[in-house]
Amino acid sequence: MGERIKIGIIGATGYTGYELIKLLSRHKFAEIISITSDSSAGTRISDIYPHLRRICDLTLEPNDYNLIADKIDVAFLCLPHGAAFEACKYFYEKKKVVIDLSADFRVKDKQLYEKTYNIMHTADNLLKEAVYGIPEIFKKEIKDAKIVANPGCYPTSIIVPLYPLIQEDLIDTSFIVADAKSGVSGAGKAPSSKTHFCEVNEDFKPYNIFAHRHNVEIDFILSSIKQNINVTFTPHLLPINRGIESCIYFKKKSAANLKEVLKNFYEGCFFIRVKEKDEIPCIKDVANTNFIDINVFENKDKVVIVSCIDNLIKGASGQAVQNMNIIFDINECEGLL
Amino acid sequence: MGERIKIGIIGATGYTGYELIKLLSRHKFAEIISITSDSSAGTRISDIYPHLRRICDLTLEPNDYNLIADKIDVAFLCLPHGAAFEACKYFYEKKKVVIDLSADFRVKDKQLYEKTYNIMHTADNLLKEAVYGIPEIFKKEIKDAKIVANPGCYPTSIIVPLYPLIQEDLIDTSFIVADAKSGVSGAGKAPSSKTHFCEVNEDFKPYNIFAHRHNVEIDFILSSIKQNINVTFTPHLLPINRGIESCIYFKKKSAANLKEVLKNFYEGCFFIRVKEKDEIPCIKDVANTNFIDINVFENKDKVVIVSCIDNLIKGASGQAVQNMNIIFDINECEGLL
Amino acid sequence: MGERIKIGIIGATGYTGYELIKLLSRHKFAEIISITSDSSAGTRISDIYPHLRRICDLTLEPNDYNLIADKIDVAFLCLPHGAAFEACKYFYEKKKVVIDLSADFRVKDKQLYEKTYNIMHTADNLLKEAVYGIPEIFKKEIKDAKIVANPGCYPTSIIVPLYPLIQEDLIDTSFIVADAKSGVSGAGKAPSSKTHFCEVNEDFKPYNIFAHRHNVEIDFILSSIKQNINVTFTPHLLPINRGIESCIYFKKKSAANLKEVLKNFYEGCFFIRVKEKDEIPCIKDVANTNFIDINVFENKDKVVIVSCIDNLIKGASGQAVQNMNIIFDINECEGLL
Amino acid sequence: MGERIKIGIIGATGYTGYELIKLLSRHKFAEIISITSDSSAGTRISDIYPHLRRICDLTLEPNDYNLIADKIDVAFLCLPHGAAFEACKYFYEKKKVVIDLSADFRVKDKQLYEKTYNIMHTADNLLKEAVYGIPEIFKKEIKDAKIVANPGCYPTSIIVPLYPLIQEDLIDTSFIVADAKSGVSGAGKAPSSKTHFCEVNEDFKPYNIFAHRHNVEIDFILSSIKQNINVTFTPHLLPINRGIESCIYFKKKSAANLKEVLKNFYEGCFFIRVKEKDEIPCIKDVANTNFIDINVFENKDKVVIVSCIDNLIKGASGQAVQNMNIIFDINECEGLL
Repeated sequence: MGERIKIGIIGATGYTGYELIKLLSRHKFAEIISITSDSSAGTRISDIYPHLRRICDLTLEPNDYNLIADKIDVAFLCLPHGAAFEACKYFYEKKKVVIDLSADFRVKDKQLYEKTYNIMHTADNLLKEAVYGIPEIFKKEIKDAKIVANPGCYPTSIIVPLYPLIQEDLIDTSFIVADAKSGVSGAGKAPSSKTHFCEVNEDFKPYNIFAHRHNVEIDFILSSIKQNINVTFTPHLLPINRGIESCIYFKKKSAANLKEVLKNFYEGCFFIRVKEKDEIPCIKDVANTNFIDINVFENKDKVVIVSCIDNLIKGASGQAVQNMNIIFDINECEGLL
Repeated sequence: MGERIKIGIIGATGYTGYELIKLLSRHKFAEIISITSDSSAGTRISDIYPHLRRICDLTLEPNDYNLIADKIDVAFLCLPHGAAFEACKYFYEKKKVVIDLSADFRVKDKQLYEKTYNIMHTADNLLKEAVYGIPEIFKKEIKDAKIVANPGCYPTSIIVPLYPLIQEDLIDTSFIVADAKSGVSGAGKAPSSKTHFCEVNEDFKPYNIFAHRHNVEIDFILSSIKQNINVTFTPHLLPINRGIESCIYFKKKSAANLKEVLKNFYEGCFFIRVKEKDEIPCIKDVANTNFIDINVFENKDKVVIVSCIDNLIKGASGQAVQNMNIIFDINECEGLL
Repeated sequence: MGERIKIGIIGATGYTGYELIKLLSRHKFAEIISITSDSSAGTRISDIYPHLRRICDLTLEPNDYNLIADKIDVAFLCLPHGAAFEACKYFYEKKKVVIDLSADFRVKDKQLYEKTYNIMHTADNLLKEAVYGIPEIFKKEIKDAKIVANPGCYPTSIIVPLYPLIQEDLIDTSFIVADAKSGVSGAGKAPSSKTHFCEVNEDFKPYNIFAHRHNVEIDFILSSIKQNINVTFTPHLLPINRGIESCIYFKKKSAANLKEVLKNFYEGCFFIRVKEKDEIPCIKDVANTNFIDINVFENKDKVVIVSCIDNLIKGASGQAVQNMNIIFDINECEGLL
Repeated sequence: MGERIKIGIIGATGYTGYELIKLLSRHKFAEIISITSDSSAGTRISDIYPHLRRICDLTLEPNDYNLIADKIDVAFLCLPHGAAFEACKYFYEKKKVVIDLSADFRVKDKQLYEKTYNIMHTADNLLKEAVYGIPEIFKKEIKDAKIVANPGCYPTSIIVPLYPLIQEDLIDTSFIVADAKSGVSGAGKAPSSKTHFCEVNEDFKPYNIFAHRHNVEIDFILSSIKQNINVTFTPHLLPINRGIESCIYFKKKSAANLKEVLKNFYEGCFFIRVKEKDEIPCIKDVANTNFIDINVFENKDKVVIVSCIDNLIKGASGQAVQNMNIIFDINECEGLL
């Protein structure tokens, strides 16, 4: 490896930007060149996150892509949905690798995207360029990707265990339940009554029942292998900072050993740990890591799969770095251990 | 109302005993006469729970039922399963009302009980006397009960919403999922690595998948109205002190308005709040109360019911007091507001 | 007791209003007649706090004092500082009892108030009418008070233990340290980055060092018994919902048994529990109660006093109800157990 | 750098052992050769801490030092106090570097140690060999140390800010208060009623007032520069997993700018961040890092110093690795970023 990969982080002040900075500061072959923020331009990132003092003391630049494009090899877009269209177009045209952590290029159906996000998709010509970035499923496509649509956190936790099983047609897809629980960082950094400490602490509740945008993303990706998958998905807010646990319920259609199917499909995948025997995945074991821990429990034809990730790492910034590593042909684990 | 009801709490040092003391100290028509503990006899309860100082400064007595029986009208048994047989027999013979918070008289099938709890049932002749104490379903039977089998916490949260719907044959019972989450007090007061703060805090995980004893209780009660109900039940440990949220998933069989069915069935039940519109039940709203908050969400034939209780109140000590109120023909809410 | 006391709660949607509603709903001799809010007028309080459904379903009225005054006997003002001037004047002139939970009448020095709160005091003629409402110290004055300046939460926890010791001139007042820690509800209900769950959870830090307004209140009250008391006060934000622990450090000047002095001074005060031996006060023991737990630890001439309250009850709404009970000659504990 | 340093971790199953494994797994120039445990010998460490799966899957060996000594260059002792005597003697005689995380060699006064820990010191001839391992103060001595007495967590947070100020005789040492708060991991991994989730969560309290062993350690180290220092030290249990905040109060004796004194003394010390202006150190900013964040606040002659560390990293395992790096002349930060 010669020169370091030059990194720009567009919209660096949110939690995914912050995690990217922490991960990339440890990355042997990457160097953060530019971090941006419209609202905080001119401020040192370590004044916003004093945790970073002496780790990364870069000053935030405004989102003037002209100034940034020539300096970087990769642009990580940590922008809200809708805001990534222009950034993506710009850096794509400049032939920079774009890793988009927003939802803008995940659902590659313009109409469905627009209905789901209630916004016009103004970069739909790039939808076909974007690769959905779960490395353990789409590694081949990611290697040559110009744009990576980095997956949502809930979808990562749910698609990884379901994908091989649906592909092999082993489960009754007419009623798949995904009861998912996420730490509060999944709701982002902006204060609101929903994230007020006293409203979350010592509480627990579902939200957006039958109406979460990630449901569309999950169904879209899974329906690419079998038509019309519609997962019954209920997200919950957990009174913890980070981590997702998803419990996935369905009936199996065959006598296949589902755990073996998962182990075979994901053989050699360092970050997927299909657990032994009756070991129960838990959030603590994956928190602050890029691992996804999975286990399968069966009782006659009823199946429960438990799947845990860190929503900010495997569910966002870690997976983004993993995707970058694949594109640049670096060890997949670099910066992630 | 003339004299106060004289109360004995057998095994008063655990969390359910503690909650009973708090509730009954406020009860206008009850008076705690005796609290017992083998391991802590001779100690003031307010030395164990300093929160109670000046509220209840009674000294714990040993479990010598002879000494206690003559002084009391009602015995609340807050004993571990297996330990309630003898106490129940004794107080029953002395013609005292017994409200048993253990699991010993809930599953009225000796063999099933013994298989589930891995212990001989030595008071099985009393099984037929015991009434399963969900007041909103079995009020008529409770009025005349000599022994109340006070329900488990998870079962309360799951049976209350399912009972009317199964009774009316409105749902596909071949695949009912109950993904339930409980605060740590549900695991009791004894320290263990599973309840160590650092192991629970910032974590979340299921336990006893396909193997929780409350699954047997739930199935037993529901199967009394329709044969062979087997709920796919997954309990989780929530990093909070108290409260249960259960998400119940199934397919509906008819076009009936399930929420209306629940509202009608539970009309006039003060402690059951079927929520309006899309209001989402949450643990915070029921914590430290005897309420159960329920709402029904539908998407075509898929249904999600969200049900929340306080595991120590509606899921244990509050429901026990409610049962006592019914037996003594007192306002059901007394001591519970 | 004949008719119930008619209550108005002005500004009822914040945490202190909410606690007042919960406490007064249990009060045998009080009845909430009117609850107000400018921003939420027309909404049921139980839509804002679903916990209250079936406990209190009153609809919030606008702050039109003309409409309210004739209906009530007592006005609890749960307004931000600066907003209580006009309300206080209005209800005072209407000869209603005013219990003001804001800071507006605590520091009875117009200039000091104005400097501290950076606002003009427009009701300073009422300062002399207002009684600082720590019942265990100022009960005699409270009995006849027309306006009660209900104390701040930190000051309550710090003044109660220090007052008798300074009055008796037992301690070296040249260097009194109060290291205090409060749950997040003390910061109020409005969302901000400072109360965002992820910013508070798993963190701990001081704030407003040498600059907290309660420092002025503490010093003002204590200086009424000995000139120029200046406590070195450092408040911290605890990652819990409610409760304050204050550790107070100083050197003693005499051989007096300080704990005995406190016990004597507060003899007969139900809500002050000076703990036995080396029992350590903790927040859990006072949470959701009106108690203040105190103990004194000595090592040669160095003294540590630990003092714990619930910031919303003894530190606000509970003490307010206690003050009302005193004024109306009701048992001090009514509504508070 | 040629070969990797070969590491043995004696008593590896507690929290400090776990943290050492995580840190050293990232260390470029170290390799864990042996991890030991008497109670769990034969078990993979990643079965105890599944978080470590694929990071470190070593199997625990029994504490048979003969088998271990020849394989390693450095022995980290993660044993309870009293248990480190024999291990230390053994590895010292074998000319291995010993880094002892227990308290056994910190207080280099046999009698004081024995009185404090209520145990005979059976390796007191080694006391003179042991160097107290705060690198930023005793780096010169550490470079040549054969035995490092790795400091306690509370003492690290308190000695670092006080040492230079006492050395320069800038403060009134007759009354120094250290009000300190620690996350629960400081109490170790063994379950007890004191670390039960429900007893800690939503609570806060001091413990061991005037009686904590770290008080002796703090006083012993500080008294080496000025006689008879006796800090009034009150530790508290914070309902968080990790981190310590210490608030240190005293009167200053001179007009010196204390913050400048600290900045000068610790110039070039990467892991000591004396904060700018009024920035307030907090636990979140140092959690999971080896940093100590410090700031000084003054009001006339009253001073508050706020000092924060991660109790398991800078307060234990991180500082231990830092000490190893110094001894082996490696960049002090290696493995710690």
